[in-house]
Amino acid sequence: MRTLIDIVEMQSMADGLRKQGNRIGFVPTMGFFHEGHLSLMRKAKELSDVVVVSLFVNPAQFGPGEDFEEYPRDEERDSMLAMKNGCDVLFVPGVEGMYPKGYATYVQVNDLSTVLCGASRPGHFQGVTTVVTKLFNIVKPHVAIFGQKDAQQAIIIRRIAEDLNYGVDIVIAPIVRESDGLAMSSRNMYLNRKERAEAVVLHQSLLEAEKLIAAGERRAHVIREAMKSLITAKDSARIDYVSILDADTLQPLDLLQGRILIALAVRFGKARLIDNTIMTC
Amino acid sequence: MRTLIDIVEMQSMADGLRKQGNRIGFVPTMGFFHEGHLSLMRKAKELSDVVVVSLFVNPAQFGPGEDFEEYPRDEERDSMLAMKNGCDVLFVPGVEGMYPKGYATYVQVNDLSTVLCGASRPGHFQGVTTVVTKLFNIVKPHVAIFGQKDAQQAIIIRRIAEDLNYGVDIVIAPIVRESDGLAMSSRNMYLNRKERAEAVVLHQSLLEAEKLIAAGERRAHVIREAMKSLITAKDSARIDYVSILDADTLQPLDLLQGRILIALAVRFGKARLIDNTIMTC
Repeated sequence: MRTLIDIVEMQSMADGLRKQGNRIGFVPTMGFFHEGHLSLMRKAKELSDVVVVSLFVNPAQFGPGEDFEEYPRDEERDSMLAMKNGCDVLFVPGVEGMYPKGYATYVQVNDLSTVLCGASRPGHFQGVTTVVTKLFNIVKPHVAIFGQKDAQQAIIIRRIAEDLNYGVDIVIAPIVRESDGLAMSSRNMYLNRKERAEAVVLHQSLLEAEKLIAAGERRAHVIREAMKSLITAKDSARIDYVSILDADTLQPLDLLQGRILIALAVRFGKARLIDNTIMTC
Repeated sequence: MRTLIDIVEMQSMADGLRKQGNRIGFVPTMGFFHEGHLSLMRKAKELSDVVVVSLFVNPAQFGPGEDFEEYPRDEERDSMLAMKNGCDVLFVPGVEGMYPKGYATYVQVNDLSTVLCGASRPGHFQGVTTVVTKLFNIVKPHVAIFGQKDAQQAIIIRRIAEDLNYGVDIVIAPIVRESDGLAMSSRNMYLNRKERAEAVVLHQSLLEAEKLIAAGERRAHVIREAMKSLITAKDSARIDYVSILDADTLQPLDLLQGRILIALAVRFGKARLIDNTIMTC
């Protein structure tokens, strides 16, 4: 595995790889790898000849007062894990290289970016779409793998890839969970013991929703109330949103029909955790 | 010369050309070619192996009530002129292909886009930067040629190419003028005989500014007033702006120093014409 920090060097390597007929698979990350990230790398390996993993804690997607500074970092451990999971090139650009003085260009997706996490975190998705656009231009992938845990992000990335004619296949890989069902997240490390135990309710509330739907319930408010009462029964939980939406347009639904996304964001102490499930009704 | 209308076909051809080691030169246009456009094509030919010219009247860069519908079009003549001036591939995408139903992604450049033409034409530069981003992803050029006549556009395009890591050389070619000094523009065809005669004042006012500066004048307001009184002496002229700015940051200047841009936009009847000069003081 090679590690590159220089943008132009990464770009020339990508050009060279393409010229030689290689299919480039790309996994953009903010590092502090868990099994979720590693599953994306292995998926990329299946789908391409050369796997590039980027490791960049992107300041543009953190709002003022959010956890950019304390976001967990461990590049040495990440490097070892990446190497063992199919990564061929680890790309670790610096903040000054990515956003030099005078930087002024942003990519935004209307409508999809202002609901759910976009409502709680203004500017977050503009930061995500901007950095992904830059990374696509640097890494020049044929296929890029994103995790289903960030469901809204996945939908938005598909939109920019299509709208801006990237010609990059966007593959969405399933959520990887701890044995008790908690979705893996770098932010789980913020949880104390009590919060960690209580956070399991996120997955349980999604399972409850699936159960209600399987039993024929189609009224969104009934399902949301059932989920919310499970979650609020936990001392340390503070709901940000529990939403049921059309899985493609992200429009909220009153009655469930077609491909639906049930998504939630809940704070436990200083950790803001998200989880979701997609179903067809 | 080949003519392509399909986006994916253009993209595969660009991939193939790159794989074979060709340098792709790109001239994005809205068609209705005059000598200005043709000079860009010939410049592209000098700088690359394969010249792609796009012809797309981009609705996203026209505001409500602007001249999108009546913007002059003559694809047959354009095709012939392109072929004679070094174009290898003429790319003529359709509006539905470029902006399909559900299209939602826009690229914007802060600060640079809200002054000068951006102040008179809100949303104009977002339309320009978005379509250029898309065209860069479709045509995959090594070098792209823009005209100095759209000075603000040229500065903004350089910014997005650098900020979004396109790795595309942006070359700015000089303004091409009619024998009486009027800058060539597809919109000159909107002028009636009287307006056409009076529009020469745009270039004359720039020459007057250059003369004053050569004589040692450095006060921006003195130069602007001299230009404005020349222009307003013409019956049919309606000034949109006459500005003297830093040529890199587009910040207005009180005292001229360094690389400066003198730019103007003036309406003659239904034509809104622009012109400019760059000098070093």
